[in-house]
Amino acid sequence: MQFSSRVERLGGKGAAAWNIHFRGVAALRAGEEVILLSVGDPDFDVAPNIANALKASLDAGDTHYADIAGNPELRASVARYHESLTGQKVGPENVLIVAGAQSGMFASAQVLLGPGDAVIVPSPRYVTYEALFGAAGAEIIDVPLRPENGFHLDPADLAAALRPNARGIVLTTPNNPTGTVMRRDEVEAVAEIARRHDLWVLTDEVYARLAHEGPHISPAGLPGMAERAVTVCSLSKSHAMTGFRIGWVVGPVNFIEHLTRLVLCMVYGSPPFIQAAAIEAIEGDQSAQETMAAAYKARGRLVFERLNQSPHLKCHRPEGGMFVMVDVRPSGVSAEEFSEHLFVEEKVTALVGDAFGPEAAGHLRLSMTYDLPVLEEACRRILKVAERHGRG
Amino acid sequence: MQFSSRVERLGGKGAAAWNIHFRGVAALRAGEEVILLSVGDPDFDVAPNIANALKASLDAGDTHYADIAGNPELRASVARYHESLTGQKVGPENVLIVAGAQSGMFASAQVLLGPGDAVIVPSPRYVTYEALFGAAGAEIIDVPLRPENGFHLDPADLAAALRPNARGIVLTTPNNPTGTVMRRDEVEAVAEIARRHDLWVLTDEVYARLAHEGPHISPAGLPGMAERAVTVCSLSKSHAMTGFRIGWVVGPVNFIEHLTRLVLCMVYGSPPFIQAAAIEAIEGDQSAQETMAAAYKARGRLVFERLNQSPHLKCHRPEGGMFVMVDVRPSGVSAEEFSEHLFVEEKVTALVGDAFGPEAAGHLRLSMTYDLPVLEEACRRILKVAERHGRG
Ligand SMILES: Cc1ncc(COP(=O)(O)O)c(C=O)c1O
Ligand SMILES: Cc1ncc(COP(=O)(O)O)c(C=O)c1O
Repeated sequence: MQFSSRVERLGGKGAAAWNIHFRGVAALRAGEEVILLSVGDPDFDVAPNIANALKASLDAGDTHYADIAGNPELRASVARYHESLTGQKVGPENVLIVAGAQSGMFASAQVLLGPGDAVIVPSPRYVTYEALFGAAGAEIIDVPLRPENGFHLDPADLAAALRPNARGIVLTTPNNPTGTVMRRDEVEAVAEIARRHDLWVLTDEVYARLAHEGPHISPAGLPGMAERAVTVCSLSKSHAMTGFRIGWVVGPVNFIEHLTRLVLCMVYGSPPFIQAAAIEAIEGDQSAQETMAAAYKARGRLVFERLNQSPHLKCHRPEGGMFVMVDVRPSGVSAEEFSEHLFVEEKVTALVGDAFGPEAAGHLRLSMTYDLPVLEEACRRILKVAERHGRG
Repeated sequence: MQFSSRVERLGGKGAAAWNIHFRGVAALRAGEEVILLSVGDPDFDVAPNIANALKASLDAGDTHYADIAGNPELRASVARYHESLTGQKVGPENVLIVAGAQSGMFASAQVLLGPGDAVIVPSPRYVTYEALFGAAGAEIIDVPLRPENGFHLDPADLAAALRPNARGIVLTTPNNPTGTVMRRDEVEAVAEIARRHDLWVLTDEVYARLAHEGPHISPAGLPGMAERAVTVCSLSKSHAMTGFRIGWVVGPVNFIEHLTRLVLCMVYGSPPFIQAAAIEAIEGDQSAQETMAAAYKARGRLVFERLNQSPHLKCHRPEGGMFVMVDVRPSGVSAEEFSEHLFVEEKVTALVGDAFGPEAAGHLRLSMTYDLPVLEEACRRILKVAERHGRG
């Protein structure tokens, strides 16, 4: 039996890199003391007020089909919240509720891009992008985020990547895997190029509230961008709601109308009781959210300081998000080997940078999903491996 | 700004037909005594054991990312349940959990079909199919389901529809809008053609447990079909869980593997607490489900009998699902006019058949989503309109 040619574009090149994670999970389940720094699921539980809002909605009988574009009250909440995050003034008609940022990126790609189109995507990048732009039929044009530039975007690299069939630019800020937060000048340079060449700017802002070395700057908030900015965000990371699968896309009204028609045939709306939880997450008490954001910041700083004590490691300063990138090239050991030693000898899992793009070769990505004492222990183990295997 | 050419294929042709429904909803909200027979959302509440399973899972902290293909326990439950519904023996590896049948159909189309491919889809058909196959880039080849044949499929029509680029056949049994349940001989004829021409058979079985004049026959259960049968189903209708957005796709292992890669980048799995509710729905007490199925059957029979008392109407015998089709052509009034009179004069909304395909012209689709006394009242009103406007 034959499949759509689309399936050839769904396999991630970096898939093998995740083996270390699966080995780690297996070892953990077998009772070993593994520290998993290989995955980005918050270690926090969702705040009780959010879970309670879900239950109350369920008890009230909100168990039927919801409006395809989302509950009007939630869309209004998101519109206000988006303004607070990005500075862009929007209304509920600019908002569509989706099943998480993943779904928002996928759906946006379907509406913005088709076969023959290209999209400019900085690399290293989040692993699922390749497949989701591939599913839309679009070609990816790589722009390097260079480690020697702290993984920040060089506008000259972006300008050099332009092609006649380029239809949009993708930004991720704060970034996974690099841990950078785009500076105002970077975002302005992107916006300038987008306006000049009439390109969409599709921004994944799932870590917007974890911009530790902020401020978080969204292209959507810059002048002349309203007609071309599409912003994807969710409550997964900010509110520890990964399992709720709830997020949104904000964009021009005609774009949202197309997106709504897509979502109608793609998934037919989001559970109403999850939307009720989302309203509470946005409108309710934010102290749990602030505690989490502060924790990720403190964790990143600790790991950065500890690992930089070794002459064999060069840790990038974590500016935002849940990840820290450490360059192991000074040790003379490859990232693959380092990760293998780290797991076999010290039971810590970390992903090799290559999974996210060749620019991150020689790097390990570490997740900040444990509390400080465990991360201290993880750092000790990483330093031991650097000491044991580092050359020179 | 330009969109993907895909967006041109997302607009449903029948969209205008839904205006009567929106007018009905507005009138209802304004306090009028409207009976809405224009939508397919169960009037029942979800059973308490199912809602409680969701809450228990939430309380247990199941709020993080789940396995992309679904919770292994749920996949095993679905595998057994699928066997009970279709007769096809499958394992958890044949099952992928999705956000409802809608999502299952969309995702399956993406994996099975691409630009240049065609898919054979009987008409009248569920309104979202056009857009979801269009999103995949595939062309639809219509096969008529003829009212004079009780909307059953004539295998000769199917054979005549074959084209070299046809890659699959879509079946919906029990059917929305026609209310038919495919007979064994029909399904066998389709399977025979599929095997001979090496076609996929993608079956939407969202009403499988509402096969009132059953049995429900799935192509997946027939010999030689395991490698080409893809079955989509959900708990939306059987368990009044439309708002939970939970369903599944069952198919060959290599197909499920492709589908899993798609779902990873499309939505990144389903909420774990909703999956817990789904396990309870499948494994727990089925008495609420049986009560609902019996109610839909009794409702359909009542409406069928009442409306056929008028010489101006010819009601099709409802064999399954939640809908009844009534042919208003004997009245000499068009379906559009009839529906307009019915709403303006008697405050009952019904969809005109044309929304689902030209074969259903002259018909109204009525939803069985009220209890018997309300449906009796709706029938009285429909009969009044037939009496008042019927010619001859
Ligand atoms: C950059 C980025 N985008 C999107 C996602 C997916 O987020 P969500 O859970 O909202 O789908 C992730 C999750 O790790 C991510 O890192
Ligand atoms: C034939 C058919 N398929 C699919 C669906 C969507 O079902 P779900 O809620 O499982 O997505 C419906 C809903 O009305 C339907 O009638």
